[in-house]
Amino acid sequence: MTVLILTCDEDVTADMVVVHLNASGVPVVRLDPADLTGSAALSGEFVHGSFRGHLSSGGRLVSIGGIRSVWVRRPGKAAARAAEPSAWLTEESGQALYGMLRDCGARWMNEPDAAHRARYKPWQLRLAQRCGLPVPATLITTFPRAAREFAARYPDLVVKPVSGAHPQDPPLAVPTSRIPPEADFSAVAHGPTLLQRRVAKRADIRLTAVGAELLAARKTTLAWPDPEEVDVRFTASPEPWRPAGVPPRVAESVRAYLRAAHLAYGAFDFAEDGDGTWWFLECNQSGQFGFVEVDTGQPIARTIAEWLARPASGEPVDAGGPGTAAVG
Amino acid sequence: MTVLILTCDEDVTADMVVVHLNASGVPVVRLDPADLTGSAALSGEFVHGSFRGHLSSGGRLVSIGGIRSVWVRRPGKAAARAAEPSAWLTEESGQALYGMLRDCGARWMNEPDAAHRARYKPWQLRLAQRCGLPVPATLITTFPRAAREFAARYPDLVVKPVSGAHPQDPPLAVPTSRIPPEADFSAVAHGPTLLQRRVAKRADIRLTAVGAELLAARKTTLAWPDPEEVDVRFTASPEPWRPAGVPPRVAESVRAYLRAAHLAYGAFDFAEDGDGTWWFLECNQSGQFGFVEVDTGQPIARTIAEWLARPASGEPVDAGGPGTAAVG
Repeated sequence: MTVLILTCDEDVTADMVVVHLNASGVPVVRLDPADLTGSAALSGEFVHGSFRGHLSSGGRLVSIGGIRSVWVRRPGKAAARAAEPSAWLTEESGQALYGMLRDCGARWMNEPDAAHRARYKPWQLRLAQRCGLPVPATLITTFPRAAREFAARYPDLVVKPVSGAHPQDPPLAVPTSRIPPEADFSAVAHGPTLLQRRVAKRADIRLTAVGAELLAARKTTLAWPDPEEVDVRFTASPEPWRPAGVPPRVAESVRAYLRAAHLAYGAFDFAEDGDGTWWFLECNQSGQFGFVEVDTGQPIARTIAEWLARPASGEPVDAGGPGTAAVG
Repeated sequence: MTVLILTCDEDVTADMVVVHLNASGVPVVRLDPADLTGSAALSGEFVHGSFRGHLSSGGRLVSIGGIRSVWVRRPGKAAARAAEPSAWLTEESGQALYGMLRDCGARWMNEPDAAHRARYKPWQLRLAQRCGLPVPATLITTFPRAAREFAARYPDLVVKPVSGAHPQDPPLAVPTSRIPPEADFSAVAHGPTLLQRRVAKRADIRLTAVGAELLAARKTTLAWPDPEEVDVRFTASPEPWRPAGVPPRVAESVRAYLRAAHLAYGAFDFAEDGDGTWWFLECNQSGQFGFVEVDTGQPIARTIAEWLARPASGEPVDAGGPGTAAVG
């Protein structure tokens, strides 16, 4: 039984996990959908009520029925590197590949539909609320009057994008920014705006969830930070990330969130306030973890490898088997 | 409690359903995401563990908590008609709108993730097989050798797109075509190709499923059809669609398919062979129904309206209520 990794060639984060899979002798096939229909190929036959499918990538052939788990890391756009790329070829290749892999019986990190849904920020905020995680008061609106009323109730606000990142290539992360007093909210009418009560934080928390394992890291906020800099991603800080314990109630809520979202992996960002409360900011279902592992030494890559390698219940533990074969 | 219809202005199929909803006094709000952030607006507030959201469209304001059902018909691209449209505004507006509507408690026709998944043809074929629907032998491949071997076993083949329609604007439907004998399959290596055993059909079947209601229509194949014309969508035929009964075993399988796919609506295409067997070709989760209703007189629009208007279990039957209000 094979672990299939969908990612691009230059993915060092995937490399970190592959090292552990190789060390434990688990067969791995790495496939970049961008390589369809060049060095990657596929075939699936639906005959007499049954299905037999195969993928080939980098000279290795894997039976779709022999895939134990699929890790969707940073897959390229389907057929992007084809000899004659086109929107039509991308559509056809993506439909063929993901259409065969969907419901193939493998465990997913993360299942594509769950991953898609998990990106919606308003949905994240409601789910976090329902799971008992504290969420800073938030407004998403195109009504200037609603923005003004909200700012009157919560004078210390930040503004951030509703979606994750600006859709340019490569994507541009838009920083969270403070709203000056007496801001003019009339421009809110031109685009949905996300306003959130600023948490006076003493630390940033990154909690990486891998299946049932929760690995948290904490970065102390500088004693006299620049009051304009609220986004840890854009702040040069001498403070490293350090391992942190997860409060039991937070752990319970995070696990409930992952169950409801059908996610096997999630990178949660929290802001820790002066009382030690962890305020939910977001959960990125494909969030990076390399920088945390480097700072903290937490075994995130190994934990992911173990999750991917784990046999399904009832499946023999023997890691090898007929799932893979060299292409003759 | 209000029915929310996400569609563009020029949607006469939606008009057919709205007529029935209006006749039964059910409040309807029609919103085209393309009108964000012009004549459509939204607001959602997440405060103290609760959520309150509103949409406004065409001068009507609806509480998101007061939405009974959402019909995703032919929604425009979010913010496409904004004063200054951009990919960024589309992303932000789509995330805000669909993020608030997801998990809002309303019934969906169809739920967005289920609708997305339902478009994958390989996934459709496997699900149809599992639900007991006969599927003509099919191969999807980029291996020329696999195509040649398949053609040796099934000499009478058609080729069709893996995905639904060519992604130009407006989308171009690609017809199903017969494969000539002695075809050269070497080009298969350049793009996934779907080959399917041709069903020697005596009729086309369109089965429109609306919740538990199944409305089937049948169009007899001409006695001496042009042997090259296999795609009913591209064939001028004097034969009308006529109402047809659904064989009980097909009905059972179709309902199993809809349950597994989490679809409230699906337009199934079958080919009926000389023995009367219905061979599954595809299920289009957003398939048109107007042409069938016009030919057969079957009450598809009314059935959709009834499904949309039906109260959730436990909800009072009173169709009006506090869900909508005119914008002052």
